[in-house]
Amino acid sequence: MSKVYDRVALIGLGLIASSMAHAIRWKGLAGEVVGHAKSPESRATALEIGLVDRVCDTAAEAVAGADLVVLCVPVGAMGAIAAEIAPHLAPGATVTDVGSVKQAVVEAVGPHIPEGVHFIPGHPLAGTEHSGPRAGFATLFVNRWWLLTPLEGGDAAATARLRGFLQGMGANVDEMEVGRHDLVLAVVSHTPHLIAYTMVGVADHLRRVTQDEVIKYSASGFRDFTRIAASDPTMWRDVFLTNRDATLDILGRFTEELFMLQRAIRMGDGDMLFDYFTRTRAIRRSIIEAGQDTDAPDFGRGAPPPKDERG
Amino acid sequence: MSKVYDRVALIGLGLIASSMAHAIRWKGLAGEVVGHAKSPESRATALEIGLVDRVCDTAAEAVAGADLVVLCVPVGAMGAIAAEIAPHLAPGATVTDVGSVKQAVVEAVGPHIPEGVHFIPGHPLAGTEHSGPRAGFATLFVNRWWLLTPLEGGDAAATARLRGFLQGMGANVDEMEVGRHDLVLAVVSHTPHLIAYTMVGVADHLRRVTQDEVIKYSASGFRDFTRIAASDPTMWRDVFLTNRDATLDILGRFTEELFMLQRAIRMGDGDMLFDYFTRTRAIRRSIIEAGQDTDAPDFGRGAPPPKDERG
Repeated sequence: MSKVYDRVALIGLGLIASSMAHAIRWKGLAGEVVGHAKSPESRATALEIGLVDRVCDTAAEAVAGADLVVLCVPVGAMGAIAAEIAPHLAPGATVTDVGSVKQAVVEAVGPHIPEGVHFIPGHPLAGTEHSGPRAGFATLFVNRWWLLTPLEGGDAAATARLRGFLQGMGANVDEMEVGRHDLVLAVVSHTPHLIAYTMVGVADHLRRVTQDEVIKYSASGFRDFTRIAASDPTMWRDVFLTNRDATLDILGRFTEELFMLQRAIRMGDGDMLFDYFTRTRAIRRSIIEAGQDTDAPDFGRGAPPPKDERG
Repeated sequence: MSKVYDRVALIGLGLIASSMAHAIRWKGLAGEVVGHAKSPESRATALEIGLVDRVCDTAAEAVAGADLVVLCVPVGAMGAIAAEIAPHLAPGATVTDVGSVKQAVVEAVGPHIPEGVHFIPGHPLAGTEHSGPRAGFATLFVNRWWLLTPLEGGDAAATARLRGFLQGMGANVDEMEVGRHDLVLAVVSHTPHLIAYTMVGVADHLRRVTQDEVIKYSASGFRDFTRIAASDPTMWRDVFLTNRDATLDILGRFTEELFMLQRAIRMGDGDMLFDYFTRTRAIRRSIIEAGQDTDAPDFGRGAPPPKDERG
């Protein structure tokens, strides 16, 4: 793989940015990687582990002269950071982001982007429940989807270049319309995460009743719920606040459906339950056919590679 | 490991029974393993793959002379099978079962058990989404919990013997009161499964709207929901019908909690969401401390071992 950008600026140094830093070096995708994080602790850690070539104290300093700027901050922080960096962006540079919601990012970031800079929103469907600059690893994006939601009238060449860069890190790149992205993600990711958080909250109440049994026997279906419910609270707060309409829509459908099944349980309607459970098998089959299954279910999150590969 | 029983009779030849058959042979835990399944196809398959030493056409025939009888049929079928085998049980034999619900099994099976036969209800917290006599493998129970809910006044020696047999297959054995078992399982397994079924049902509607995107991007949180929603419909129908009260109780708490989060999303109450998501991290930490975590989340289901270990 050869160099795609001369200088990549990573704004925010959490799991995604630190994984990008490792992947960029691993594949030689950029001449230089610079980074900035708001928290002094994260900057100190990044320096200590040599995460990037240069750690900058301000975002403005980090983006100066970069031909790719990647906003890796929670969705709710995107607007402020865009306003801050806007005057310092190099002409012809590309700005992308890794937010889990796209309409809100387009609205928050778009107006700040100067003429001659290419803004191409993006979203890698990859992660773990760990966060911070030490959480990253080079293979996080391998065989994961990285969705781009290019804006109308955007520069095709800039998009193609970004696509090549993301593919260089091992990702499968797809393009999607902004609103559709937010709806699809509400179904496949946001609502399932909210449900997992909720179920863990319920168990937390009951833990007092059943002592440690809930914890002890968590392997029977509950453990994965706790894994996703341990994800970064700031990131997920912002996801739900900014993808509110789609999440509320899917949640509404979910509770209708749940009430129907709950009623069937209460009424002892075994046929209804049996038919419902039989139908859901078809979806599972489609997923196996779509090649999205492995023997290690992980909620879209690759298990970290062995320590020595982490860089 | 040496022989614990002379003859084990497996009634029902699905995933659990076929895994037991492999594990018993692997560890030499019984002199002979006989089996019966209601469906002629399952019996034919068991014969064809040499699953047990003898395949019997009736359950009565299978239990005759057995010192351990294991009922491996859906919870809803336990009562009828108990009535059928009762007159044929050997004096001093132990009868156990593998049902996911225990109070209903105690009520359905208990009254049929003759004087001098030891009935010790049980429940292995292990499984995969596959079913039938070909689905079993010898290591399914290794490091999994196998819960026993011995009845008051039961024979301690018979329980100790059964415990040794289960440990011989690699399981960690724990004893629990019947009602507590059903409540704990409603939290850690039954309700999470119902929720997963529901979420998959919602996506099934939406699939028509968003074409194949839901399937394609299922790795982002949704895929594990489909895995558990592909489990055996008969088994799960019976679980919900027979553990109705505990499941409805937990479902009630779950929807209250979900509505509270849903309202916070609607009202834009970011602080509430952040606090909630922060609290759920504590549970995750407890699970890691309890040693119930691995890097391969699997809803309590071990990935099948390599083909050549399957026996």
